[in-house]
Amino acid sequence: MKITQQQIADLNKKEDSVFTSELDLIANRFAKKGVDVNVIVNKVAKFQVAIPSWALGAGGTRFGRFSYGGEPATLEQKLDDIGLLHALTQSAGAVSLHIPWDVPEDYKAIKEVAAGHGIIFDAMNSNTFQDQPGAKESYKHGSLSSTVDASRDYAIQHNLDVIKIGEQLGSKSLTVWLADGSNFPGQRNFQTVLKHTEDSLKAIYADLPEEWKLFIEYKPYEPAFYSTVIQDWGTSFMLANACGDKAYTLVDLGHHLPNTNIEQIVATLMLKGKLGGFHFNDSKYGDDDVTVGSIKPYPLFLIFNELVYGIENNPQNPDLAWMIDASHNTKDPLEDLIQSLEAIKIAYTQALLVNQDELRAAQQDNDVVKCQEILQDAYRTDVRPILKAARQKAGGAIDPLAAYRSLAVRNGLITERGTNSKATGL
Amino acid sequence: MKITQQQIADLNKKEDSVFTSELDLIANRFAKKGVDVNVIVNKVAKFQVAIPSWALGAGGTRFGRFSYGGEPATLEQKLDDIGLLHALTQSAGAVSLHIPWDVPEDYKAIKEVAAGHGIIFDAMNSNTFQDQPGAKESYKHGSLSSTVDASRDYAIQHNLDVIKIGEQLGSKSLTVWLADGSNFPGQRNFQTVLKHTEDSLKAIYADLPEEWKLFIEYKPYEPAFYSTVIQDWGTSFMLANACGDKAYTLVDLGHHLPNTNIEQIVATLMLKGKLGGFHFNDSKYGDDDVTVGSIKPYPLFLIFNELVYGIENNPQNPDLAWMIDASHNTKDPLEDLIQSLEAIKIAYTQALLVNQDELRAAQQDNDVVKCQEILQDAYRTDVRPILKAARQKAGGAIDPLAAYRSLAVRNGLITERGTNSKATGL
Amino acid sequence: MKITQQQIADLNKKEDSVFTSELDLIANRFAKKGVDVNVIVNKVAKFQVAIPSWALGAGGTRFGRFSYGGEPATLEQKLDDIGLLHALTQSAGAVSLHIPWDVPEDYKAIKEVAAGHGIIFDAMNSNTFQDQPGAKESYKHGSLSSTVDASRDYAIQHNLDVIKIGEQLGSKSLTVWLADGSNFPGQRNFQTVLKHTEDSLKAIYADLPEEWKLFIEYKPYEPAFYSTVIQDWGTSFMLANACGDKAYTLVDLGHHLPNTNIEQIVATLMLKGKLGGFHFNDSKYGDDDVTVGSIKPYPLFLIFNELVYGIENNPQNPDLAWMIDASHNTKDPLEDLIQSLEAIKIAYTQALLVNQDELRAAQQDNDVVKCQEILQDAYRTDVRPILKAARQKAGGAIDPLAAYRSLAVRNGLITERGTNSKATGL
Amino acid sequence: MKITQQQIADLNKKEDSVFTSELDLIANRFAKKGVDVNVIVNKVAKFQVAIPSWALGAGGTRFGRFSYGGEPATLEQKLDDIGLLHALTQSAGAVSLHIPWDVPEDYKAIKEVAAGHGIIFDAMNSNTFQDQPGAKESYKHGSLSSTVDASRDYAIQHNLDVIKIGEQLGSKSLTVWLADGSNFPGQRNFQTVLKHTEDSLKAIYADLPEEWKLFIEYKPYEPAFYSTVIQDWGTSFMLANACGDKAYTLVDLGHHLPNTNIEQIVATLMLKGKLGGFHFNDSKYGDDDVTVGSIKPYPLFLIFNELVYGIENNPQNPDLAWMIDASHNTKDPLEDLIQSLEAIKIAYTQALLVNQDELRAAQQDNDVVKCQEILQDAYRTDVRPILKAARQKAGGAIDPLAAYRSLAVRNGLITERGTNSKATGL
Repeated sequence: MKITQQQIADLNKKEDSVFTSELDLIANRFAKKGVDVNVIVNKVAKFQVAIPSWALGAGGTRFGRFSYGGEPATLEQKLDDIGLLHALTQSAGAVSLHIPWDVPEDYKAIKEVAAGHGIIFDAMNSNTFQDQPGAKESYKHGSLSSTVDASRDYAIQHNLDVIKIGEQLGSKSLTVWLADGSNFPGQRNFQTVLKHTEDSLKAIYADLPEEWKLFIEYKPYEPAFYSTVIQDWGTSFMLANACGDKAYTLVDLGHHLPNTNIEQIVATLMLKGKLGGFHFNDSKYGDDDVTVGSIKPYPLFLIFNELVYGIENNPQNPDLAWMIDASHNTKDPLEDLIQSLEAIKIAYTQALLVNQDELRAAQQDNDVVKCQEILQDAYRTDVRPILKAARQKAGGAIDPLAAYRSLAVRNGLITERGTNSKATGL
Repeated sequence: MKITQQQIADLNKKEDSVFTSELDLIANRFAKKGVDVNVIVNKVAKFQVAIPSWALGAGGTRFGRFSYGGEPATLEQKLDDIGLLHALTQSAGAVSLHIPWDVPEDYKAIKEVAAGHGIIFDAMNSNTFQDQPGAKESYKHGSLSSTVDASRDYAIQHNLDVIKIGEQLGSKSLTVWLADGSNFPGQRNFQTVLKHTEDSLKAIYADLPEEWKLFIEYKPYEPAFYSTVIQDWGTSFMLANACGDKAYTLVDLGHHLPNTNIEQIVATLMLKGKLGGFHFNDSKYGDDDVTVGSIKPYPLFLIFNELVYGIENNPQNPDLAWMIDASHNTKDPLEDLIQSLEAIKIAYTQALLVNQDELRAAQQDNDVVKCQEILQDAYRTDVRPILKAARQKAGGAIDPLAAYRSLAVRNGLITERGTNSKATGL
Repeated sequence: MKITQQQIADLNKKEDSVFTSELDLIANRFAKKGVDVNVIVNKVAKFQVAIPSWALGAGGTRFGRFSYGGEPATLEQKLDDIGLLHALTQSAGAVSLHIPWDVPEDYKAIKEVAAGHGIIFDAMNSNTFQDQPGAKESYKHGSLSSTVDASRDYAIQHNLDVIKIGEQLGSKSLTVWLADGSNFPGQRNFQTVLKHTEDSLKAIYADLPEEWKLFIEYKPYEPAFYSTVIQDWGTSFMLANACGDKAYTLVDLGHHLPNTNIEQIVATLMLKGKLGGFHFNDSKYGDDDVTVGSIKPYPLFLIFNELVYGIENNPQNPDLAWMIDASHNTKDPLEDLIQSLEAIKIAYTQALLVNQDELRAAQQDNDVVKCQEILQDAYRTDVRPILKAARQKAGGAIDPLAAYRSLAVRNGLITERGTNSKATGL
Repeated sequence: MKITQQQIADLNKKEDSVFTSELDLIANRFAKKGVDVNVIVNKVAKFQVAIPSWALGAGGTRFGRFSYGGEPATLEQKLDDIGLLHALTQSAGAVSLHIPWDVPEDYKAIKEVAAGHGIIFDAMNSNTFQDQPGAKESYKHGSLSSTVDASRDYAIQHNLDVIKIGEQLGSKSLTVWLADGSNFPGQRNFQTVLKHTEDSLKAIYADLPEEWKLFIEYKPYEPAFYSTVIQDWGTSFMLANACGDKAYTLVDLGHHLPNTNIEQIVATLMLKGKLGGFHFNDSKYGDDDVTVGSIKPYPLFLIFNELVYGIENNPQNPDLAWMIDASHNTKDPLEDLIQSLEAIKIAYTQALLVNQDELRAAQQDNDVVKCQEILQDAYRTDVRPILKAARQKAGGAIDPLAAYRSLAVRNGLITERGTNSKATGL
């Protein structure tokens, strides 16, 4: 199953062109505020988000998993799925692999498949939260933080192995999500496990290739239900500082306690030059990992408002690694990802519409009402015409979801792969 | 300080008419989906929200209160303020009084002031959470739920007095927010205080005039920090059923535990014919009482989606009593209310754009992706042109906030009232 | 592996008898308050909690599962495990089965195994949250609430089948935990699914045998991450009322939003005669299902304080169905259950120590300080000597955990069953 | 009103001496575990907690305040109240002043009053969250973080003034609780206000006397309801590091988002040598500021477990500043403080009972069940006999609350001060 440029061009021809009139009205309105919408169209056209390899299979909960047909069973098929996404949206030009679920058998072949889809290899993800069949050491009581030396060494070595795999694929960064923690008060000594974790991360950092970056995630709970070693941005930031200049904090939207002001965390990290990457998803309760923008689109915009400000004003940060980290039990994963990409780009575009000079002046005057008006004027604007123009310009489908359904992609995949295929790692 | 129709007409003439072009594009787009935007403009033009008398003074927190100038010191001045709001927005044609803060000295005069502004008297609010100077009984340990018979009787009588005041003003409903609860485990017997509360509410209900309705609010915490007698919708619903057909649950957006699915509560109450009214505000943490739509605009839309559905499909409910219940320490209260009214009407309008038949069909098909698309298509639409058209039609200002500032209303009020006036009850 | 009375008697002989001196001091202290500790010892000795069949295997999270050795692979082995627990604690004389994980192949044989351990069959649990291999209908989009008639009928029939299985085993109640809900706003019509759910429950209720009870659980989220049909006690209570006198609400400690006052819910349900049963576990974040009393022992005591009060004062409720519903990734499940049983009985005993007359008087006087003192005096008392005495009296081990380790039970089970056995359903 | 040693001695004579038998049993039990209870009695006898001057008046909420009689109207009277507490408990030998509420008129006289009660002056508290009558600059839009230079300078100067007052009284530390934040998205630029805050704190730090320490509090929300500049420990820690070695983080138990693992934060800060002080209170929902130990006694114990461990193992931290920060609308404040002191010392004592070597060994073995047993064995022990012995040894009342009531202290205060006195600052 492959989508050709011609197919997309044909579909785009049938699309209603009313969005160009809408775009003109928006452009005129914001020109008066000193915002050039054409510049924004170009920025949006270039914006790329990595797709994690695990988002292409059917995720589930501890209570079960409902399958769907045509699931990609191999790494090649996962790349093919991202290729479909990228052809439609021109925004999914990267993949983020999870090791050991996605170890290539033939590196050259895999790189060719990816290149054929216009996909690069973004951050590599290690896994020290599960015991693999035949594993020599267990992570049952921790990995990088374990009090068992052998488990700790095993986990460090795994991360080094992941780096080596990534080097062969052209990746330049390693994301460490450390699930280590405890389920019961007293189970572990907080100070000891924190020291072990710092030492283990330093050991990995010491072997990090010159051009690589290390991203340290944080999460308050799950799968550990009493404590998690890297429970918040403060701990991640402290550890990144202990490692060195190439270590950064990575923010996953679902990894916060109820009501956390995430945008403020983003601003703080950018001010200090320590924001490395971003995992997008959405949630109402915990790390629900549902479609980006499906639950809290306004906070997503507020976060992008800080990101856009920081990209402009904080050159001390690296280019951010953007990734979607959602799962889905009830949607076709590709449709889910199309919706997530749309939501991310809507928030990004709205943030670009904010006139930062005007906002800065209102903030300086403590004109609270006007500050809110400025943000909400951008947020309330229907920016979908900008996204359509950007996609058209980049060679993608004006309406990717409609195109996906029109081309009957899922049926095609089921025909190719059957209804019982299952993604590695799930 | 009064705003004349001529002033508004003059300001409207200066407004950019580009919104009519935007409106046409919206109307065309939704006409294809079978939604008539003209009908929506009319509905929005008629939509009225009550302003509570206490929202016009400077609210504060337990840590303090920052005043602003021109605060209304009397009930007449409060009505004048609502009159200004209503002149600008044509959406604030009702007031909700709080007794004993707003007992009229001269009923006839007050009714004339209100009528002069086009304001009616919506639900009356009783207050049994504070001891008034000279009070014969104390509410320190509870009012309608008190184990002290005299306190309970005193609180019941207060509610009956409030009804009598309301009758003279033309109000038709009483809202009971019961702050009773406890700060410490063991302090009160849950069963006893619930029984007392049920009996007290029944006593008030027994004296409710024929055409009146009783609204029972719920709230999980604050000012009681361990338990609150009417802690959730389930308790309110149970008590409303115990009272009778004229008793309803009232939902205040800020009165829920973190992550509560409020729209589901709304749907349940409407299905059972027990939703009586709504208090609008917004919050990130608790009952923060900040400007409507300033924190969570998407949940507000989702709630309106249920309200619009219920108004259409659940005739067993009464006309809902809409009220804003926000406070503000950092904004001019009138500007704050203009922003709240705008946010409420945006959410209402977006909900009206949802094609309920199409949604119902997608739900029946379990096409989860399409269901989300339908809701988000409505939500992502910039409906402000519809609001402008509705306001223009109703004789209000196309842009009420700009008009308010252009007319220098606050300065006018300060000139009239000085900088040290203070609203009763605050 | 079986534990004999003689083994327990031998172990008890070796136990330090200092607890009897401690018991005397407690008895003397509370005798002065009019509380007879001997009566409490007897009540504690009789207290029995059902063990769910799924608690005996290694639970996990969506991120994985760490096995341990000697896991019971069959229903017989599960009963044997509970038999070990009961021999040690004399408090685990009941099992709660989960269908289809625990369908007996030979009813007579299973009943004999249970009887041999002194175990009765408590509430039956149905499962409509997973699709079983070969299932004719899918629950992917709901079961009792589904808009698909066939799925709904299939789920109803499953519940009726569970009742039939239960009848053959001597069970007298059915617990319905309905996982139905939605992951995205708009996915389902709240009113429709609530009506379907009410109708489905009524259909099950209509076929409930005369002496049976129907327990309706509630839960705010997980596995559904936007809405759950029976989201709170209010919804469960409403549905139980709609069904009839034999339908009750069942409270699971982990099924609440953050900060919910659960003890107040318990009191309300008992006042209204609608509390049917209780699922014990503990949690810090969500439905973490960790060892009872390991995180929040004081709230557990406060809940028992309401339960003890209600059992005494609300004869309109049935005998409550007590069950542990915990899972565990890091502990030996039998040790975990021993700790849970201990925590439950500690809380129960502390609640029994509260002098209800004295508390009632202090509440009536609004002597808030004294109310707290009364509760905390009971809570701060070290009641473990009472538990030891009760266990000794009932023929159990004075210190069950020490006995379990001393008898090397886990090693025995591993010898019998091997290290790779896996419980059905997990 | 003063309590003499003779009065206390007389009351102690009448106390039941059964606690000494209970103490012996505890001592014997823990001697077997290698824990010397006599050492613990001595530690508890020496333990002192500062009382904040504002805890002696009737606190309230934004909804009101219920007064009680005999409230201390002056700083002298506040010290007298603490003197009463200290005489009874021998644990309240310090006061923490709040400026400008407690500016002494006559330093020498105030110091004599304090010395007469055996009270020292602990950390000074500044107040930049309220505008005082006649203030030259306003904190309406922020203080140390303000974008208005004059407000920022004014707030810095206020803190310097507070230090000077403290120096005259013998205090050695300044606690900065910065309420600055925002109520609405966009209101303030996160990066700008954070930089201002860092600069302001450095300016204060630069003038800190040689032997002084600077404590930086954090709080997620209230009174600001969208963002707070120092929202969490990570931000406080970052700022303390920026200031220098004499700057520390101060933890207030009520200043966390729901479900935060506070004990882990304590451990992290102690490991890094940056824990400066502690504000004790309790809460169920937000910063409820209710009696210590009244809601969550087990988490309090877990926190003390980390504190005791850190005091032993982390000499890089200073002696911690302990303070109660609770308020109360429904209790006599002195009784409330007696209950808080009792709860703090119970948790401290229980933590001292933990055999750290045994716990360390179980943690090293990953014997999760045993780790929990060790902690809970200490927690479940009724340590009140130890507190009684410690108090008796130190010259306090064996049962301070009973003594307080027996001596009719409140009546005495009402006689002296009347029923309408009101504490400064409230």
